[in-house]
Amino acid sequence: MTALVCDIGGTNTRFGLVEDGRLAAAGMASFANDGFDGFEAALAAYLDQTGTRRLEACCIALAGIATPEGAELTNRDWTIRRASIAAMTGAREIGFLNDFEALGFALLGVDRLETAPLFSAVAPSPGGGTRMVLGAGTGFNAAACYPARFGAVPHVAAAECGHTTLALEGEAEFSLQRKLAAGRGRASIERALSGNGLCEIHEWVCERSGRGTEGRSAAEIAALAVSGADPDCVAAAEQFVRLLGRVAGDLALTFLPAGGIYIAGGVCRALAPLMVSTGTLHEAFRAKGRMTPLMDTFSASLLLDDLAALGGCVEWLRVSRLADG
Amino acid sequence: MTALVCDIGGTNTRFGLVEDGRLAAAGMASFANDGFDGFEAALAAYLDQTGTRRLEACCIALAGIATPEGAELTNRDWTIRRASIAAMTGAREIGFLNDFEALGFALLGVDRLETAPLFSAVAPSPGGGTRMVLGAGTGFNAAACYPARFGAVPHVAAAECGHTTLALEGEAEFSLQRKLAAGRGRASIERALSGNGLCEIHEWVCERSGRGTEGRSAAEIAALAVSGADPDCVAAAEQFVRLLGRVAGDLALTFLPAGGIYIAGGVCRALAPLMVSTGTLHEAFRAKGRMTPLMDTFSASLLLDDLAALGGCVEWLRVSRLADG
Repeated sequence: MTALVCDIGGTNTRFGLVEDGRLAAAGMASFANDGFDGFEAALAAYLDQTGTRRLEACCIALAGIATPEGAELTNRDWTIRRASIAAMTGAREIGFLNDFEALGFALLGVDRLETAPLFSAVAPSPGGGTRMVLGAGTGFNAAACYPARFGAVPHVAAAECGHTTLALEGEAEFSLQRKLAAGRGRASIERALSGNGLCEIHEWVCERSGRGTEGRSAAEIAALAVSGADPDCVAAAEQFVRLLGRVAGDLALTFLPAGGIYIAGGVCRALAPLMVSTGTLHEAFRAKGRMTPLMDTFSASLLLDDLAALGGCVEWLRVSRLADG
Repeated sequence: MTALVCDIGGTNTRFGLVEDGRLAAAGMASFANDGFDGFEAALAAYLDQTGTRRLEACCIALAGIATPEGAELTNRDWTIRRASIAAMTGAREIGFLNDFEALGFALLGVDRLETAPLFSAVAPSPGGGTRMVLGAGTGFNAAACYPARFGAVPHVAAAECGHTTLALEGEAEFSLQRKLAAGRGRASIERALSGNGLCEIHEWVCERSGRGTEGRSAAEIAALAVSGADPDCVAAAEQFVRLLGRVAGDLALTFLPAGGIYIAGGVCRALAPLMVSTGTLHEAFRAKGRMTPLMDTFSASLLLDDLAALGGCVEWLRVSRLADG
């Protein structure tokens, strides 16, 4: 049977075809979202380009809230309805996943993903194979992949973690909270842990250093921080990584991922060299008072696989059938 | 078959026997923990008192980290090992659950539990029947009860949410953060959202009002707040409920409990009249910026059932067999 998998990102939409339970190299394509009025137009172009007439199943991952009946993108005015996808493709089985939920499904086959270690557990895990993915790019989110507990199918939990309240500590960070919350009444995690967040943290660092803001992009800040060429970029990246470590630790206490933590997203990948070299990530992760021994049972890796979300859609198709069978 | 269920609280341990899949009224007993050196001594006394010789299964819930091999209480020097429980009871199936995980299992049969509404959803839920329980008593914690997604067994997720970082916002709360973090380096959620937390918040209110601290207990503060007799107790309770609403909202964004939020724990129950009358709980819960429409799809109830954790152990026994069968 032929199934379609799709990963709608902030800028591009990737498509793939699943043949014999695997992603077929021949069907891979990526389209710029700006070229289309809506998802249906992009899908029509893909079906046309690949000469695909009829599909049995579709699984669509996207940055937004997904329900069985459809989904809405958070940062683009696209609404997708099950009925219209069914009409276009003939597919009877259609799944919508939050993009991090798709990464959570991808963690079912984590051994096949490209990853790199960030920090290791220093004590044995108290048990359970729950895995967690979190990441910062355009926004921030996380998902948990709970193993099959009673011999049944595993459970992947979607979340909207980027919108939870950012926890800041101490005088310097209170001043950051004032900046991030200005005009908005509150500061969520993704106000800091995102591309825009890195820019705002950099502005805040520049305001404090008195060296002036230069309106750098997140990519520039990350590059200048990693090379060590600019002290304000280094300080901004250090603050970003400290917050990332704290948030990752809080999410670890929430999801208890004894099976490993996977960090994804463009900004995290750009700052990864600093996460390993400075020790700030692990230090901030572990700083949970009397829970530090528990924190020491967790390990973290960087998720480097660009096709992980598509792979997660393939896993979703497999798991949903495993359950049906 | 006869199974034993047990709920080890901070002060007392409740025991019950399960006959024909239900909690038998005759077997219920509660022992004061201070009367015993360890859990095994309390269990021996219970088995002796009820004339119980042999059990087929045991499920033990406790405030602490539970693994398949045993558990350690967070606030009492008791360690429980699977092997010793097996030797004492002959049980082949032995489960250890965090106390909130047990409440999560109890939510599988929420219609049979005693609850009271706190606030209602003002918009239809986007789907999914995930339920969440959270609560403040001696400490704070939460758990999620995810419905069976692919026709398989449901998944209950344990957590250690009380130890995550407390998110404070604005100048007044930054001063509270300084007080709660003093001498500890950080303030976790349960530094504020617990019986001791309510006392610390009350001290902080008294320091600011200049009316002097009187070293009141959490129960006194709650009673004087609910009656409206003492302005500092009213202000402390109001701050507590505001933080509870914010944390409940953050956890709702994390677990997406479209099936309902259940608030448990002695301190929450004591303050419940204020949660309904002032609107502070729901207001703080909803204050998530552009996510407010999502927040309006959630409803919350107070969990009043003292036997809920024991009932959750009974559900655990049922679900673990459902999966085996």
